[in-house]
Amino acid sequence: MDRRSFLKTSALGGTAAAATTLAAPAYAQGKRTLTMVTSWGRGLAGVFDSAQRVADSITAMTDGDLTVEIKAAGELVGAFEVFDAVSSGQADMYHAADYYFVGQHPAYAFFTSVPFGMTAQELLNWYHHAGGMQAHDELGQIFGLKSFIAGNTGAQAGGWYSKEINSPEDFNGLKFRMPGLGGKALGKLGASVQNIPGSEVYQALSSGAIDGTEWIGPWADEKAGFQEITKTYYTAGFHEPGAALSLATNREVFEGLSPAHQKVIEIAAGEAHQWSLAQFLNNNGAALQRLQAGGVKVMEFPDSVWDAFGQASNEVMSENMGDDIFKSVYDSYNASMKASSNWQNLSSGVYTAQRDRVLG
Amino acid sequence: MDRRSFLKTSALGGTAAAATTLAAPAYAQGKRTLTMVTSWGRGLAGVFDSAQRVADSITAMTDGDLTVEIKAAGELVGAFEVFDAVSSGQADMYHAADYYFVGQHPAYAFFTSVPFGMTAQELLNWYHHAGGMQAHDELGQIFGLKSFIAGNTGAQAGGWYSKEINSPEDFNGLKFRMPGLGGKALGKLGASVQNIPGSEVYQALSSGAIDGTEWIGPWADEKAGFQEITKTYYTAGFHEPGAALSLATNREVFEGLSPAHQKVIEIAAGEAHQWSLAQFLNNNGAALQRLQAGGVKVMEFPDSVWDAFGQASNEVMSENMGDDIFKSVYDSYNASMKASSNWQNLSSGVYTAQRDRVLG
Repeated sequence: MDRRSFLKTSALGGTAAAATTLAAPAYAQGKRTLTMVTSWGRGLAGVFDSAQRVADSITAMTDGDLTVEIKAAGELVGAFEVFDAVSSGQADMYHAADYYFVGQHPAYAFFTSVPFGMTAQELLNWYHHAGGMQAHDELGQIFGLKSFIAGNTGAQAGGWYSKEINSPEDFNGLKFRMPGLGGKALGKLGASVQNIPGSEVYQALSSGAIDGTEWIGPWADEKAGFQEITKTYYTAGFHEPGAALSLATNREVFEGLSPAHQKVIEIAAGEAHQWSLAQFLNNNGAALQRLQAGGVKVMEFPDSVWDAFGQASNEVMSENMGDDIFKSVYDSYNASMKASSNWQNLSSGVYTAQRDRVLG
Repeated sequence: MDRRSFLKTSALGGTAAAATTLAAPAYAQGKRTLTMVTSWGRGLAGVFDSAQRVADSITAMTDGDLTVEIKAAGELVGAFEVFDAVSSGQADMYHAADYYFVGQHPAYAFFTSVPFGMTAQELLNWYHHAGGMQAHDELGQIFGLKSFIAGNTGAQAGGWYSKEINSPEDFNGLKFRMPGLGGKALGKLGASVQNIPGSEVYQALSSGAIDGTEWIGPWADEKAGFQEITKTYYTAGFHEPGAALSLATNREVFEGLSPAHQKVIEIAAGEAHQWSLAQFLNNNGAALQRLQAGGVKVMEFPDSVWDAFGQASNEVMSENMGDDIFKSVYDSYNASMKASSNWQNLSSGVYTAQRDRVLG
């Protein structure tokens, strides 16, 4: 019998059962190992690090009463099978990018990143203070998950291309790796879009199976080695302006933990989000310098391409509005983005522009 | 005998004592209350909230084994006395802005914010991945503190003025509230600068004891009520482009805790930093709209004033370079800021400009 069925039964079971449920709940004592499956190859720069960060924090803060054991992609289940593994109880938790699971529900896109959507900071504002966390939780309830954001790559680079992109037409027939709704938007421009796990992208680009790929940003991209295959690199992209990573625990497992251990998981995930975002942003600057020194050309898409990205993104978002949950999450997300971006422009936007001007 | 003296004695005490220290350390069992003094009036928007967040997280994650009890400014010691109270062991921990303590050491300025310095995100990059946390810890060792950043206001507003600022000369003789090195820079422009605890600023502005003040940003400023006194509000400022708040624990107390409880404090502080920054940024947009609807004029300093801010800030930083620790922290901070701001401009900078252009 699962715990929720038990509680229902108890509530219907009269005085004796009710008295039992009023007693202090008896949580499992002693040490317990939680298996965390991930979408990441072992050691994959940044993304595996953030899974490791959250796992280590949980283990350390509970003095090993909860010991989190990480499985890299393929060690227990495949990169994109982690959602079903945790939802079904085969594993206890996953660390992944939730937009890999738009097939399970399209609204999962918002908890990684959507095209022309929020920066990492805007996402945080929404998540903690304007309904994002509740929306994530409601979505998780459908699938038996308890989810938290637990990592962030920052704004992702536009990506690596076998040729320069001078107009929207250059995407016609281009075989490109891009997951999530960004990929669907690129499909509107005529690209042949594929979703390939991070650890398999180098091989696909190298063999010519794809003509280009986005991955994360200079630091992780350099480690992946894409600069060995092409030198044409677009630094700004429309598709993932602040890509969050998620920690999701099987909901029955989560609800069976003590409130203290539940709080440990929540706070560990939040701290890992901040630590991970800082890791990417700290390492990207130096990596970009190395890439440029090695002959990589840093490019920026022309306005006509950004306009096409904007229109295609809008179409993709519109196509999902028939789903009530998607629309409700979109409305909450969009209202928050507008409110927070205005202050950002007037404060740190003006400040950094003046700092760059004054300091040169 | 304090713990460090004890360990020293043991190390010198021969075989028997050495065997004792090699045994598993015996940490205090059972529940313990830690007293947190703060620089904040009880309930002061944002800043008290972040102290409460970190206190609640520690208490909840340890199931009350560490119960943090918060004292508002004046309840145990005054707003600016918290540093000495924790350093001396009178209280267990403080939550404050470390630039209040530039009198204790000028390098404390870096762990809140310095004029023309880092945004909140740049500070995080440095803190977690480029030496900032270690520098904070080394500074803490001098004063018997174990410090973590544990809150952030984001870029602070330029502030409230009794008159418009059209040239650097307008600061001559102006009585203005601004703490930290930003305040010292304003002094270079001829302002009479004062540092006043947050809960006393309204009274000072209202009585004419000061001609203007910066406090935090639209949300906290609106709650403080400055719009009742003047309507002239500068949204961008040079002085605190991302002001961190700190949690500092008495070092003897910290070292006496189990590694699990030490980790709980570290991770709770980190998570509170993220949560707090998001709270300020989420609430500032809506507050600014209300302020404007109430007749507040949103202003921007002219370039000539920003130039003067830049020169004065540079002078203030230079004056502190004779101190080896200050210079060493400055060098680390500055190198990190340069590296991270470049990538920020090329990625999310380009993205948000294009998003604003395309979405209108």
